[in-house]
Amino acid sequence: MADQYAHSGDDKRPTEIPAIRWEEPPEGPVLVLLDQTRLPAEEVELVCTDASALVEAIRSLAVRGAPLLGIAGAYGVALAAVRGFDVDEAAASLAGARPTAVNLAVGVRRAQSAHEAALAKGGDVRQAAAAALAAARQLHREDAEASGRMAEHGLALLDELLPGGGHRVLTHCNTGSLVSGGEGTAFAVALAAHRTGRLRRLWVDETRPLLQGARLTAYEAARSGMAYTLLTDNAAGSLFAAGEVDAVLIGADRITADGSVANKVGSYPLAVLARYHHVPFIVVAPVTTVDLDTADGASVEVEQRPGHEVTEVTAPQVPVVGVEAGGGIPVAPLGTQAYNPAFDVTPAELVTAIVTEEGVVSPVTAEALAEVCARSRRVVAG
Amino acid sequence: MADQYAHSGDDKRPTEIPAIRWEEPPEGPVLVLLDQTRLPAEEVELVCTDASALVEAIRSLAVRGAPLLGIAGAYGVALAAVRGFDVDEAAASLAGARPTAVNLAVGVRRAQSAHEAALAKGGDVRQAAAAALAAARQLHREDAEASGRMAEHGLALLDELLPGGGHRVLTHCNTGSLVSGGEGTAFAVALAAHRTGRLRRLWVDETRPLLQGARLTAYEAARSGMAYTLLTDNAAGSLFAAGEVDAVLIGADRITADGSVANKVGSYPLAVLARYHHVPFIVVAPVTTVDLDTADGASVEVEQRPGHEVTEVTAPQVPVVGVEAGGGIPVAPLGTQAYNPAFDVTPAELVTAIVTEEGVVSPVTAEALAEVCARSRRVVAG
Repeated sequence: MADQYAHSGDDKRPTEIPAIRWEEPPEGPVLVLLDQTRLPAEEVELVCTDASALVEAIRSLAVRGAPLLGIAGAYGVALAAVRGFDVDEAAASLAGARPTAVNLAVGVRRAQSAHEAALAKGGDVRQAAAAALAAARQLHREDAEASGRMAEHGLALLDELLPGGGHRVLTHCNTGSLVSGGEGTAFAVALAAHRTGRLRRLWVDETRPLLQGARLTAYEAARSGMAYTLLTDNAAGSLFAAGEVDAVLIGADRITADGSVANKVGSYPLAVLARYHHVPFIVVAPVTTVDLDTADGASVEVEQRPGHEVTEVTAPQVPVVGVEAGGGIPVAPLGTQAYNPAFDVTPAELVTAIVTEEGVVSPVTAEALAEVCARSRRVVAG
Repeated sequence: MADQYAHSGDDKRPTEIPAIRWEEPPEGPVLVLLDQTRLPAEEVELVCTDASALVEAIRSLAVRGAPLLGIAGAYGVALAAVRGFDVDEAAASLAGARPTAVNLAVGVRRAQSAHEAALAKGGDVRQAAAAALAAARQLHREDAEASGRMAEHGLALLDELLPGGGHRVLTHCNTGSLVSGGEGTAFAVALAAHRTGRLRRLWVDETRPLLQGARLTAYEAARSGMAYTLLTDNAAGSLFAAGEVDAVLIGADRITADGSVANKVGSYPLAVLARYHHVPFIVVAPVTTVDLDTADGASVEVEQRPGHEVTEVTAPQVPVVGVEAGGGIPVAPLGTQAYNPAFDVTPAELVTAIVTEEGVVSPVTAEALAEVCARSRRVVAG
């Protein structure tokens, strides 16, 4: 079951609500989520008291973003255990809430394994539940720490590439605390630059078709007090031409063994513009994003999303009269076919550096990437 | 006064309504406009019986596009003259309806001059009105003929650059019959390729923030029976990378003496992508677009448009509950600043060819451009 906490201050400025938090009020433990479908219009928190409420929140995209989904899944298992529900049933239902989200299943499995191990060691249900919760908290902490280390490495790289500070950084899509247990990936680097007074401006691509930049990154920038400016994706060219971009910082959905970067559609054109204008193009992602089993960019299968995301415009949570099947307002003629790839692939030769929690890969080569992954495995093994 | 002709067929497919036409029903002459603010949702014609109705239609963007505004202005003067209104008053009010639209004032002046000349030669008011109407029709015809010649030259160029046909053409913004007395500029070339069976696909950039591609170019492509596909502007990179674009065809707002091309924002990134992928980038525009008094691209002042075009989404003629000042649905946090240049500037070295009604300029040099302009002046002088 889910309740709502509504936060609607008079000044309407974004506040500091975390994307996810575990709380233990007298009525029993709950998982509290910032409802991302309502942003930036409203800050509403969803209070989940059982796994099925969390499944619903995951399905409705109230909680989203690869690392955050993993953390949510782990807490969901802990919630079921602590409240005395069937843990395996809850785990199966959580892991299946978004079948393509690998991190979600991994996070669920981690808490579930901790629960099983505690029982196997002769612990009672209370001890097993505590073990599941500890595993979720550990995952949450690790993700936050990885964010912190990426921010540190990324800021050092920025300072090295652009001595003198006053960085004007262009970013695409949403890579901040809304998708992470910490402060995110690319956004965390910009935030570190902001906090040390070295960020002059964050240029925020609106990121069509789903407007994650306008809706979520602008929200994160506003609540961090950054100087930021929103633009249509196609206006980035003018900024480059005017010499107004010092670096591009983006995240990654997947990095292949040869260093090709699959990320939100619109990343590749920025990489080409950056190369043409001799501007560093920097990818920030945890080591878990590197997929050494996929050889190269050409082997990445690009998901095609529904055409109505392009042929209709939508704005979340706004009542519209006369909507069509996709739930939005039609802007193109009826029957218009759309090409709507979810992401694009940037080859390694256009990527200046890949920043991970284990260090910076630059120049981007298969060998250097494999070495960073090995380092990560050594840390985990140790 | 303006009436409406509504066209709403059962199958909802676009029909063949011209953007502008002069009619002479028994009740007296009228100027009939396809209301572009209602496209593509509805095909509604506005029937103007006097100049003030036309002024209103121009202000509300029911009629738009540089060459078409010139033609509309000339017909507006003729309408005032034929219906016995004060011609100079109508001309002043029409020319001022959109002060920055140079073509509008030029078109108005052309019909007004014809009217004055007829009176000066001793003609009566009926003969003077006929002269104004003849001048408007002449301008309309000239523009249509220029479209036809651009299409011819452009198609020959495409065939030369891409022997074998099966052209897959990417276009940006709206350059067809909705902005022209004929079939437009870049769109007219694509249409000529379509009619001769040599167009495999028209890729239509949606063209944020005002979505002229989704709303208007897709409409024009649909009513021409073309194979077309709509995409977000930032997805063009994926098409180039996949080898799915054979040529880029765009229009121009202004071409400077050195061959720099100012056009709708988003054109320059396409030029950079086209260069990176060795794809021809072709500009199609009448000679009147060339501004020999502006030396180079750096001298072009780029109009910055209101931020709400980016921070809100709008869809024309759809009732929305709870709209903000800009008339749209807010998608970014309150107070978000936006960078919203109306156009960008592509330097001559990225332009493969400029196609005019007087011939093709390629390679694009100041000398070749001046020569084409001189040819045009010789034709006018002759």
